[in-house]
Amino acid sequence: MPLLMIPVQEAYRIITANRTNWGTETIPLPLASRRILAEPITADRDFPPFDRVTMDGIAIALEAPITEGLFRMEATQYAGEAPKLITSRGSAIEVMTGAVLPSNTNTVIRYEDVTFSEYGNKRFAALNASVNPQQNVHHQGSDRQTGEVLLQPGIRLGSSEIGILASVGKAEVLVEKKPRIAIISTGDELVDIQVTPLPYQIRKSSGYQLAAALQEMGFASELFHLPDHPESLENKLGDLLQNFEILILTGGVSAGKKDFVPATLEKLGVQKQFHKVAQRPGKPVWFGVKSGKNAVFALPGNPVSTFACFLKYVRPYLLRETLTPMKAVLSERVVFKPELTYFLTVAASFNEEGRLIANPLKGSGSGDFANLLECTGFLELPADRSEFEAGEVFSYLSFRS
Amino acid sequence: MPLLMIPVQEAYRIITANRTNWGTETIPLPLASRRILAEPITADRDFPPFDRVTMDGIAIALEAPITEGLFRMEATQYAGEAPKLITSRGSAIEVMTGAVLPSNTNTVIRYEDVTFSEYGNKRFAALNASVNPQQNVHHQGSDRQTGEVLLQPGIRLGSSEIGILASVGKAEVLVEKKPRIAIISTGDELVDIQVTPLPYQIRKSSGYQLAAALQEMGFASELFHLPDHPESLENKLGDLLQNFEILILTGGVSAGKKDFVPATLEKLGVQKQFHKVAQRPGKPVWFGVKSGKNAVFALPGNPVSTFACFLKYVRPYLLRETLTPMKAVLSERVVFKPELTYFLTVAASFNEEGRLIANPLKGSGSGDFANLLECTGFLELPADRSEFEAGEVFSYLSFRS
Repeated sequence: MPLLMIPVQEAYRIITANRTNWGTETIPLPLASRRILAEPITADRDFPPFDRVTMDGIAIALEAPITEGLFRMEATQYAGEAPKLITSRGSAIEVMTGAVLPSNTNTVIRYEDVTFSEYGNKRFAALNASVNPQQNVHHQGSDRQTGEVLLQPGIRLGSSEIGILASVGKAEVLVEKKPRIAIISTGDELVDIQVTPLPYQIRKSSGYQLAAALQEMGFASELFHLPDHPESLENKLGDLLQNFEILILTGGVSAGKKDFVPATLEKLGVQKQFHKVAQRPGKPVWFGVKSGKNAVFALPGNPVSTFACFLKYVRPYLLRETLTPMKAVLSERVVFKPELTYFLTVAASFNEEGRLIANPLKGSGSGDFANLLECTGFLELPADRSEFEAGEVFSYLSFRS
Repeated sequence: MPLLMIPVQEAYRIITANRTNWGTETIPLPLASRRILAEPITADRDFPPFDRVTMDGIAIALEAPITEGLFRMEATQYAGEAPKLITSRGSAIEVMTGAVLPSNTNTVIRYEDVTFSEYGNKRFAALNASVNPQQNVHHQGSDRQTGEVLLQPGIRLGSSEIGILASVGKAEVLVEKKPRIAIISTGDELVDIQVTPLPYQIRKSSGYQLAAALQEMGFASELFHLPDHPESLENKLGDLLQNFEILILTGGVSAGKKDFVPATLEKLGVQKQFHKVAQRPGKPVWFGVKSGKNAVFALPGNPVSTFACFLKYVRPYLLRETLTPMKAVLSERVVFKPELTYFLTVAASFNEEGRLIANPLKGSGSGDFANLLECTGFLELPADRSEFEAGEVFSYLSFRS
């Protein structure tokens, strides 16, 4: 039973090269969070769109710094009102933050720096600090100018991008369609979570874990379970390939006598891109595509293996180039002899030097998913070495996206 | 107009001290992602629940290491089957990953280390490697034992916790109820995003941005807009206090003549906990509570101020102690003279040393939300100093939760 393993980097390259587009759709802005943008977004007006008052106070016309002065108050300029005018240089208009700067003024003095007084029915503001021309004004177009590209297609929309889209009036936005995702567990030892298992059975758990991880990424999914039986697998997987673009299977991909998944997928026309990667855990991982429509990830069934493969291959497939690469510092010496990339389970946290320190967790291998409790991610130790020293830095796959 | 500012740490302490519980509810497990757990979770059986085969291969009984041997194959033990027995010490049972270890065996030899052959109708496996007793077996209870507490109340459920809950049969789980959240913008300069603004108007954007940030955290919210008018504010805010536990307002909290929000809230019985914090941006932030039911955050209206206050106060209020504290390294010298905590907009990324390096962004202050585009978060520079050197480490508020 030869193991024709490919390196992790090659598996990752194949995954990346086989990304598919599922088309685009226009959706209301409030639904666009975490979606991938499919159109360039330009400024439809200057940012800010007018000379904007940044402090509550008074607006005056000023050519050179002054340290004293008395201004006659003429009016109040509220936010949302058309710009007013001062009728003489010695006058001022009271202004509110967010208002347009009155037309023939150029400087705002904040309330803290003036004292108001009244004489008869006239109101005056006396300066009690030094003032420079142009202060407390956010000038039209100083951030971005009309027509400038603000957002490029391909980015993932976070909260600040949603704010920008709102500000340029994108009540609807063109985004990439999301694939329909099926999570399919296999393994006759698995029973439903409501069931009390027999002593040699265990409850399904990976499917729920993967669905939760997808949900955090903004993707919905549906859960299925198929028996370790070739005909039944073939029928059901055939249906699922029709109705879902992405299939994520767990279990049935190793060398066991009931590991029918790879052969069944190939029979159904899913073209194998790789099977078996030089890594631990997760060595038996299988990946294939069908007719430019389906991508099928068949992951090993042990929960830790499943999750390592999900984070290394499935997540970047779905999120494209929008994932932030993370690096962490190994906290203690680790020796791992096999010529395999080692996805070390770690608990990582920031130290006082702003370094993300990854502490290896003791575990009994890929089956130990109680271990996942303290675990925050995997440190990816490369295959070409067997000794890894405390203080060295490696790529880190965080559980949180 | 005196500024009775409190320090950022004091504001944060007040927020924390005023956290409220909104009760608990039992929900189906697939809906529990990102919810806060409200019950302790114990192991209902050992982890693993039986001596578990970890490799496809053959199971034998073995007392001491061996380097050669020939075993008569008696049966196959599949995952999900009740344990079988070998009838003599020289025999073996073929075993599949995930199966229970056959009753009177204790060691698994993987396929790669044996060669199968047949004589007559009998099948034999010849060892071609050295074998140690107990190898490739994951022993019952070696990870966790029945009755052990696996998860404590108060944690936020991520994908691995969901996996654990499934494995112990929690088809339903007790979690803290989520508050109903209203996001309320004020400011007469604001128009709807579908509208082409007049030259001195701008579109509403902060509400959409906050709603997206809440959605990433797993919280739904509803958007409202109220005019800068005291009676109207009072009526509508009165209704909203009835129907929502959390109110997040933007705008109307400063010293301007139309900044009616704080007075209106107090009139409605919302008890002010603080108003004005020694920070930039976001100084006018207001926080109050009502009758142990409502928490009201009134944030300044400039988008960058709004978001800094949201990340510093609202997010930790809602997520409690479940947020991972982050630290980042300032990449260049920054001088900031005012005695205020400075929330510096930065673009942060991991360097080759596993340090999160925060690069300050140029910006024109709190109104510059186009700046938020490159920004990944805020570096929190303390108020008691004015010079901050390259290489120093500070708390980092990441946009992503």
